[in-house]
Amino acid sequence: MSETQDDKSFVEDLTDQSDDFARWYNEVVRKAQLADYAPVRGCMVIRPYGFGLWENMQRLLDARIRATGHQNAYFPVLIPESLLKLEAEHVEGFAPQVAWVTHGGNDKLEERLAIRPTSEAIICRMYSRWIESYRDLPVLLNQWCNVMRWEKVTRLFLRTTEFLWQEGHTAHATAEDCQAEVLRMLDVYRSFAETDLALPVHAGRKSDAEKFAGAEMTYSIEALMRDGKALQAGTSHNLGQHFAKVFDITFQDEQGRRQHVHQTSWGVSTRLIGAVIMAHGDDQGLRLPPRVAPIQAVVVPIWRTPEDRATVRAFLERVKGALTERVRLHVDDREQYTPGWKYNEYELRGVPLRLEVGPKDVAKGTVMSVRRDNRAKESIPLESLAPRVTTLLDEVQAALLESARAFRAENTAFASTLEEIEAHFGERRGFVAAPWDGSPEFEAQVRERTGATMRCVPLDQAPYAGRFRAAHPVALFARAY
Amino acid sequence: MSETQDDKSFVEDLTDQSDDFARWYNEVVRKAQLADYAPVRGCMVIRPYGFGLWENMQRLLDARIRATGHQNAYFPVLIPESLLKLEAEHVEGFAPQVAWVTHGGNDKLEERLAIRPTSEAIICRMYSRWIESYRDLPVLLNQWCNVMRWEKVTRLFLRTTEFLWQEGHTAHATAEDCQAEVLRMLDVYRSFAETDLALPVHAGRKSDAEKFAGAEMTYSIEALMRDGKALQAGTSHNLGQHFAKVFDITFQDEQGRRQHVHQTSWGVSTRLIGAVIMAHGDDQGLRLPPRVAPIQAVVVPIWRTPEDRATVRAFLERVKGALTERVRLHVDDREQYTPGWKYNEYELRGVPLRLEVGPKDVAKGTVMSVRRDNRAKESIPLESLAPRVTTLLDEVQAALLESARAFRAENTAFASTLEEIEAHFGERRGFVAAPWDGSPEFEAQVRERTGATMRCVPLDQAPYAGRFRAAHPVALFARAY
Repeated sequence: MSETQDDKSFVEDLTDQSDDFARWYNEVVRKAQLADYAPVRGCMVIRPYGFGLWENMQRLLDARIRATGHQNAYFPVLIPESLLKLEAEHVEGFAPQVAWVTHGGNDKLEERLAIRPTSEAIICRMYSRWIESYRDLPVLLNQWCNVMRWEKVTRLFLRTTEFLWQEGHTAHATAEDCQAEVLRMLDVYRSFAETDLALPVHAGRKSDAEKFAGAEMTYSIEALMRDGKALQAGTSHNLGQHFAKVFDITFQDEQGRRQHVHQTSWGVSTRLIGAVIMAHGDDQGLRLPPRVAPIQAVVVPIWRTPEDRATVRAFLERVKGALTERVRLHVDDREQYTPGWKYNEYELRGVPLRLEVGPKDVAKGTVMSVRRDNRAKESIPLESLAPRVTTLLDEVQAALLESARAFRAENTAFASTLEEIEAHFGERRGFVAAPWDGSPEFEAQVRERTGATMRCVPLDQAPYAGRFRAAHPVALFARAY
Repeated sequence: MSETQDDKSFVEDLTDQSDDFARWYNEVVRKAQLADYAPVRGCMVIRPYGFGLWENMQRLLDARIRATGHQNAYFPVLIPESLLKLEAEHVEGFAPQVAWVTHGGNDKLEERLAIRPTSEAIICRMYSRWIESYRDLPVLLNQWCNVMRWEKVTRLFLRTTEFLWQEGHTAHATAEDCQAEVLRMLDVYRSFAETDLALPVHAGRKSDAEKFAGAEMTYSIEALMRDGKALQAGTSHNLGQHFAKVFDITFQDEQGRRQHVHQTSWGVSTRLIGAVIMAHGDDQGLRLPPRVAPIQAVVVPIWRTPEDRATVRAFLERVKGALTERVRLHVDDREQYTPGWKYNEYELRGVPLRLEVGPKDVAKGTVMSVRRDNRAKESIPLESLAPRVTTLLDEVQAALLESARAFRAENTAFASTLEEIEAHFGERRGFVAAPWDGSPEFEAQVRERTGATMRCVPLDQAPYAGRFRAAHPVALFARAY
């Protein structure tokens, strides 16, 4: 909002990615007004531009979650300590990160209440009340909410004490149905990341060391950032019957027998905003995928004389008329900034398409479009503006995905041994694909010697077929956020 | 979800409103599966049907909030005690109701953190950083979030420790702009309540005794429930410069002078769900306004023989084809329940339109529609099903508003003196309109003698013109939730 001298020079001041990626990230988040630090340790304020990005992500992912038969609900933010403690691994995993409420008004509470770090405990308690018969299954619920995990080191979007997310929680009659749901939602995340965020991901299984506290098996989607580090962008857990047993969630099957349900949970968070920033951004700032960009096209009028101003303004109305219903449009007719200043600003903010309208354009009845991703320019006649802009946005979306895929391919290496993995990470980053016998010892040695972790064992092993002599499935290793 | 014997008899068991309105309310909320009590004192679980209602309200109100130029953002759930204490009246009003976080993980915090009871304090701190110049104004932000107020007595939706709401927070250069915003948003609420919720409301000014902690002036919309009690359904506050002064929110005006901003805040909450239930419901259960009903029309197939079943099922596909894109449709083809059982269930759940499809209907190529609000039946040919259902839904929406308006008119009395007000509330409920000189003493006396409070001084005084000899504006008194 503020337009101080400091802000006016923000583009010139942006650190190059190659100089200091972490610094570039912090600067671009702040300067593009995506988020700001709050006066509470580790918490963030999501500003309208960043929140608009999140709202678009929400809308698109929510539609996918509904299309697979789920409904939204809302469970309380506070969880009694005794409930959280019921599942032993779960509490062990989360207790060190919990914010505790001890007082309500002036009274000390009899029992401490946790601000939810995740909602398995409270939801399982309700499921034990609601589920009676096989006819009640499957239960397919999702909630969008805030959660809190007390983090020692925080970074905007990537790791904050409070964050926003969706968490799906389902209950099933059989282990097969349950596992099918786990993989279905993993694929929903994969498809959402690739189609809507232009973010290519590996979908695969995590190791026991990396699985969710209380889960039988965790799956994730893993993306590659432009500094060569991986980022876990979503998880889907098979909780088996662990929670059902401690929370006593049973149903009567068709033969009248009492059985424990099989459960899943799955989530993605505002961390995805960090992923979009770091997978697509460049030295000029953000490059937002059109499908989620709060502003898909910005119109910058250009004039010097009052006559030009009147002509251009009149033409702008026709541009607006052609595009308003079709694309998320912003017309920046502020007079205190030059067109050049605005070009820099909207490049920093990653708006996919810039539309320039000057007196010469008006004379020709055209608009000059400039793509953010590759700076390609073209003059578009007003008559064909709406279809051409729609197509251009699709092209930008596709090009960002293609560019991220190419980057990932360039930054994926292959290794057959621990030594080769070590040699790779001595010099480079990116993914290393290597056959893995599944032993925790190997995984631990990689981590100790290289700082890289086992990101996942991809479900799709086809790309690695015949590449290695070892018969083990291929795992992907990378340093990670 | 559960289908126990207890649930099977739920409609027969519903308490009549006239026998015990509070009990009717609790039963209908639970039996219609809108919400459930959570294992945390005073907190609720909003179940999919209740949350679907909230999501529809959110979508419609959010569009109105955007259409008036506001953007959404997100601020942290935790507020440091020192920030909350800056504005004296504000902390005095909210401190007794605050849930306090004292520990993060295993560590005791240096300063206690409040779970937001409302977000003025944290937002004002950010505004003081962001606002520099008159060019930054107005700042027009809104957020949808959870808040927490430690309540002694709680009721689902009406008064819960945690609730969901939206809170708008704006900053303006002048007192005039600020007051215009306060009234603009009050009118957005009025229009939303009447158009989308079929809820007639009085929009007016609260007394000093009832204003928001820290505000200069509070306005509200006030609705009437079917037990004759009023319910405050939304508030819009003029905060003046109180917060700007203690949080140091200043801007440089066009003449280069530093000035404090003028602020507003305004909100509606999940309490509105309670209002919809209590303004429209009857002895059979909910009557949901079509514009926000999660299910607008339910199709109940009827058959006895396998041949009928096949014929009806085939016809159902055509019914679905005609309506799916036009209305929120649910087809209940569960075989373990009779059609009669389903009729009762969807009446309880307040679905505006029931569509019955039996062999005779199929033979005629028609569908039998039954309105929830007045039970009016009509046979609709399949060819005209989509437009007729759309029209019927509009008619139900209009009829609910009309019915609520008539009920309010019947339950509005007029009184010129304290004695007349007292006489009224000795025998009846509803609104009493009476001239009020604005004195706190009169207001306090009404409360002491009748239990009724001054709900608002309506902005629209035209309905009372010439009715009273006193020149004072008319105020509305009522017992209230």
